[in-house]
Amino acid sequence: MSTPIGPCWENGFTIPGQSGHMERVLELAKQWGADAIRSSDGADLPPSVAESGYQVYSNVYLIRKDNEWISRHPHVLQQLFKTSPFVQAQETEGPFVINIMDGYNREMYRPNGNTDALPHWQVFDRTTGDLLDPGDWRYDETRQSVVIDKVAPWHFYSVSFLAYNTWDVIHWYNHTVNNWDDEPQMPMDPIYPEVRERIEQNLAKWLETNAYVDVVRFTSFYYLNHGGGICDYSQTVSPRALALFKEKYGTMPTAESFIREGAYNHSAQVPDPVYKQWMAFIHDFFMEISGPYIDMVHDAGKKAVIFLGDQWIGSEPYAPDFKTLKMDGAIAAVFNGFETRLVGDLTSVPVKEIRFHPYFFPKEVTGKPTFSEGGEPLNDLQTYWRDVRRACLRVTINRISFGGIISLLDGYPDFVDYVGEVSRQARRIAACHLEGAPWKAPVKAAVLCEWGQLRAWIYRGRMRYNSIYNNLLEALAGLPVDVRFLSFDEVLESGVPADVDVVINCGKAGTSWSGGERWGDPRLETALFRFVHNGGGFIGMGEPSALKGGGRFFRMAPVLGVDREPVLIQENVDFKSFCRDGHFIVSDADGPLDLLDETVNLKPFTQQAEVVSWRRIAECDHFYDYLRPQLVVNGYGAGRGVYFSGFKYDAMNSRVLARALYWAAGKEQQWTAWQSDNPFLECAWFPAARKLIVVNNSHQTQKGTITGDDGQMYPIELSMLDMSETDV
Amino acid sequence: MSTPIGPCWENGFTIPGQSGHMERVLELAKQWGADAIRSSDGADLPPSVAESGYQVYSNVYLIRKDNEWISRHPHVLQQLFKTSPFVQAQETEGPFVINIMDGYNREMYRPNGNTDALPHWQVFDRTTGDLLDPGDWRYDETRQSVVIDKVAPWHFYSVSFLAYNTWDVIHWYNHTVNNWDDEPQMPMDPIYPEVRERIEQNLAKWLETNAYVDVVRFTSFYYLNHGGGICDYSQTVSPRALALFKEKYGTMPTAESFIREGAYNHSAQVPDPVYKQWMAFIHDFFMEISGPYIDMVHDAGKKAVIFLGDQWIGSEPYAPDFKTLKMDGAIAAVFNGFETRLVGDLTSVPVKEIRFHPYFFPKEVTGKPTFSEGGEPLNDLQTYWRDVRRACLRVTINRISFGGIISLLDGYPDFVDYVGEVSRQARRIAACHLEGAPWKAPVKAAVLCEWGQLRAWIYRGRMRYNSIYNNLLEALAGLPVDVRFLSFDEVLESGVPADVDVVINCGKAGTSWSGGERWGDPRLETALFRFVHNGGGFIGMGEPSALKGGGRFFRMAPVLGVDREPVLIQENVDFKSFCRDGHFIVSDADGPLDLLDETVNLKPFTQQAEVVSWRRIAECDHFYDYLRPQLVVNGYGAGRGVYFSGFKYDAMNSRVLARALYWAAGKEQQWTAWQSDNPFLECAWFPAARKLIVVNNSHQTQKGTITGDDGQMYPIELSMLDMSETDV
Repeated sequence: MSTPIGPCWENGFTIPGQSGHMERVLELAKQWGADAIRSSDGADLPPSVAESGYQVYSNVYLIRKDNEWISRHPHVLQQLFKTSPFVQAQETEGPFVINIMDGYNREMYRPNGNTDALPHWQVFDRTTGDLLDPGDWRYDETRQSVVIDKVAPWHFYSVSFLAYNTWDVIHWYNHTVNNWDDEPQMPMDPIYPEVRERIEQNLAKWLETNAYVDVVRFTSFYYLNHGGGICDYSQTVSPRALALFKEKYGTMPTAESFIREGAYNHSAQVPDPVYKQWMAFIHDFFMEISGPYIDMVHDAGKKAVIFLGDQWIGSEPYAPDFKTLKMDGAIAAVFNGFETRLVGDLTSVPVKEIRFHPYFFPKEVTGKPTFSEGGEPLNDLQTYWRDVRRACLRVTINRISFGGIISLLDGYPDFVDYVGEVSRQARRIAACHLEGAPWKAPVKAAVLCEWGQLRAWIYRGRMRYNSIYNNLLEALAGLPVDVRFLSFDEVLESGVPADVDVVINCGKAGTSWSGGERWGDPRLETALFRFVHNGGGFIGMGEPSALKGGGRFFRMAPVLGVDREPVLIQENVDFKSFCRDGHFIVSDADGPLDLLDETVNLKPFTQQAEVVSWRRIAECDHFYDYLRPQLVVNGYGAGRGVYFSGFKYDAMNSRVLARALYWAAGKEQQWTAWQSDNPFLECAWFPAARKLIVVNNSHQTQKGTITGDDGQMYPIELSMLDMSETDV
Repeated sequence: MSTPIGPCWENGFTIPGQSGHMERVLELAKQWGADAIRSSDGADLPPSVAESGYQVYSNVYLIRKDNEWISRHPHVLQQLFKTSPFVQAQETEGPFVINIMDGYNREMYRPNGNTDALPHWQVFDRTTGDLLDPGDWRYDETRQSVVIDKVAPWHFYSVSFLAYNTWDVIHWYNHTVNNWDDEPQMPMDPIYPEVRERIEQNLAKWLETNAYVDVVRFTSFYYLNHGGGICDYSQTVSPRALALFKEKYGTMPTAESFIREGAYNHSAQVPDPVYKQWMAFIHDFFMEISGPYIDMVHDAGKKAVIFLGDQWIGSEPYAPDFKTLKMDGAIAAVFNGFETRLVGDLTSVPVKEIRFHPYFFPKEVTGKPTFSEGGEPLNDLQTYWRDVRRACLRVTINRISFGGIISLLDGYPDFVDYVGEVSRQARRIAACHLEGAPWKAPVKAAVLCEWGQLRAWIYRGRMRYNSIYNNLLEALAGLPVDVRFLSFDEVLESGVPADVDVVINCGKAGTSWSGGERWGDPRLETALFRFVHNGGGFIGMGEPSALKGGGRFFRMAPVLGVDREPVLIQENVDFKSFCRDGHFIVSDADGPLDLLDETVNLKPFTQQAEVVSWRRIAECDHFYDYLRPQLVVNGYGAGRGVYFSGFKYDAMNSRVLARALYWAAGKEQQWTAWQSDNPFLECAWFPAARKLIVVNNSHQTQKGTITGDDGQMYPIELSMLDMSETDV
């Protein structure tokens, strides 16, 4: 894996017609400078590829592609907790029936009403929150329905049940989106010893059959995230796993620990303590069973890499013990910067690879058309690379890859050329990294949320523009500051680490990002008050540290200088006397920022607070101009607070964030070093390589000047989205 | 009081120079068609006024202007619960001191640390919410401070204390804003029998001295609202009143029932049960003591009217028993329509008067300049009258009035002329009402909130543009629909009244308007589900029925068809497939509405929901257009739901609201009768007078057609803000 970086790519999946395109594949590999070709599962490459000098990557699917055996052992199917729809009772006579599978694909899921499963089912009156006594309902397996004898009119009822997953979701997706028509693949659960044995046998046979494969990509490493991001462990349950958990921890998790009123354990949920134990339990299980498989790969003389995409729940590659697996690399499919950082910041594997979007599919995984009517794949790739590149400047990405159906590229020669350009740029950036780490700004930031460094850079793996937390991550991903993630538990246990300059808390009230009920423990706010009072910086965004109580909504309002009304009295607060022009943080901005969703109903909390960016949203006939604060700065002891009422990832706001980090850390005097005077131009300085890389993040030509840390000026002009490399 | 309507006005206050302007006063009275002149307190009018044929109004100040007597009986000063600032402890040695009067005017308030008062004080650790044991703190009267021996670093502490009000706040206001310099007036509390006796004596003497006064205006009827709107009863307390309450109800209210973590009992707060009993207790007391004073006025051959402005807490003119007082009228100072409805909807008094803003003062009560540098009083009056007039079209306003310092009018001849125009229009509208009630639309609406009809049309008495509830009230105030207010308690007790077509719930989560924890009682939502299922309409605005639970945030989401994410997962919900053009409700609108603050993070709740107005707020590179729903319609049983994601009072939105009311009631077929086809033109049809009044609510000339209920068309063209009257 120490070969020079180059785009490796896969030859698409094993659908009719693909194998006939091998010539075109080799042609593109040459054009793009690839050093590796990827097979879907080892069976689809002609021998000529192995002989052509390219490395060969191949997926292995540990828990599927074994229908025949699974059919004979149906109890080993993976299971998960699901909730029926919440169904409203009306004023009718007779028993109330909930068809628990309504809305679900019956080819994909089948309720598990076995005697060891049924005790885990729960039926709720969701209107009162009351759990129904098991004697008050019964499961009709034939009709896949639950019958409740007595219900209250207009109340909602739901059934939480265990279900078998009878069709692997990724495989189903390819059926649906890519028109596959092979037999639905069933996923098996390694919680059963016989499955682990079967996996070992299958893998041994595969390694033997696919001797020419150089790199084994563990694509289904075992459990799928259930739609809620990498913190959703719904699909790791089974009566057996639940019993093993009880044996170890003494408590039996309930369905509701997974269902959470139908929201499941999305990464944005504040988890309950039992659920956090469950996550640890599954990770321990992952570590316990995975080592031997990786050893088998190594013993066969191959590399082993993990794909952080399909089934990888429980692997936790940021966990301190992950590196004991001796995995050779990790791969993430990325649209943007923070997904790139998710893999790029890993210290548990030596090689990090990013797989680019758009896939060579008619539609993107998000449903957006790409290589089909209405699609603009070149424009998509330009956008994604603009954002991904920012992250590549900050951390080492060793490999890049593309993939999909080769024949779809035929109508898009500009796209094919731009893949070449992306690979050239990525190679140049990686070459700089290989000589030595890039210069870092003198500010160490810590993002404070539920998950900490164990789940660094996660949101849900996709850019969602209406999430302020997502937008923060994306801006941070490309800044030259040190970023780590700090959990509430860590702060409760030992305060803010000594080497952190600025703590950031960002998100909507009640989420795992902002903290929700976690702020009910006063030790959290007191630890942060102490940190800022002694000279630390605190940046709050949106509804930071939000939990109504003590006359505040933002627990950190004394530091931020501003609060949201704890009771939404909705006064017309006149911020005019708080407004100050020309603050360091906004000195690149000309007028109000574009923050997308601003938090409303703000009120000043301290008299010395200064509103340094604001927007006039209306004129009120009866009072005064209605100025809505966007950015508030405040002093607290020897430290500083900065509040952003909203945040959207764009060039100007990323710049404002960078300045806010410097200012909150009290280091605004050190600002100019390795900064450009044009927010659309960002740079990375590689002292070991003595290279200055400058990127233009805009679709227009940009001019500007970079200032070195010795005051030297480097004038630069770059056309749209271009990148330059200067020897210094 | 059955004299023809005309602007009555006061001759300003008794400050030097006013008495010298009497000639100008009489000249304006003639120009404006006034029939009455008002004295500040009966002592400031020259005898010539009484002889001029004008009625004479005069304020009486029952609880102040008696400093000499109060000085000799200082225990009778009014009292109130106040909170000290919430002060943060640091990591310092020694006792912690809270200066309880920090931030308060010491001329206005004095802590009451007497032995009967101190037991009511409370000291809180506001960080944990813990009440400190009285043994853990002591009051240092000399320093007006509370000393706590042991505090936790970084925790906040506060002192809730009883204070005497040593300077009437209205009087203080005139000192500050209008440069009065007479001796600060002290307010006395009628809870003491000796005060009630003194008030009786003072009133008897006053009636004797001011024989020529025709109408007595009770301006200080006894208790001031404490800054939080008419639901804030903070200034009605005293050790005596608290003891009397305990005698009657068996419980002793705590300071915290009034302080509420520093937010007091603003009208937007959901009150606690003890506090609601307190409100009833004070109203009973008001009714008990006020009759005799009114009888005295009547016995002296004069009328008695109440001013719903300064001190009137506890009077509750919407309470069913209020009319037993035989008050002759009520007066409200108004900026806009819903304040006008507050007095205009009263059935407990025969005559309703509105007092106009702007006052003839240099600055408005809101702090905005008026008759001084930067002021635009003509523009202000035009704006206020535009809004007030809409309400005057719907309910009878018998009298209007202006007031202030006459000499300030000298530089504003346009303003003086426009007062004449306002009085002409008001007189014409009132004349129509006197012949018979105007036509009403076939929709009866009920606004559902904490307060019900007992406190109809209240918000806080001022237009605040960032309150969605306020904006709803203002739009409703001028629509030809029947509007009543329905409390949560009423619905819990007996469901939605049979004659209500549409229930509206509007406000931010957690407020008394939306309902907050009131929705924790499932009987509330079930009563409303039943109502809508059986054919009723439900309109939700902002965060209606919002209380997280059961997988919902809006409890009425099944009716509204849309919910706000209960956990703010912040998905990019793609509403595209829900969007429908050309719905009845928005058929006057051209594109998105201007709703000021839209609720974000919405998600569809039912598949049949239709988004009938939306706004594209951003393009998301990775997904789809980000369309934010503004208006959602949904069917539920035989009824209908409409959701507004925000609301701002303007001509278009008022029209959309009117249509939403018709549609929710299932009466969209009846829409055209007495509607104009131009949203800027509104009309009132007076069948008894056979007059059609049309108003132009815009600053531009408007053309349009009114359709009668027989299909007859009335074309109309009106210049800016003009009004027409047509015989039909």
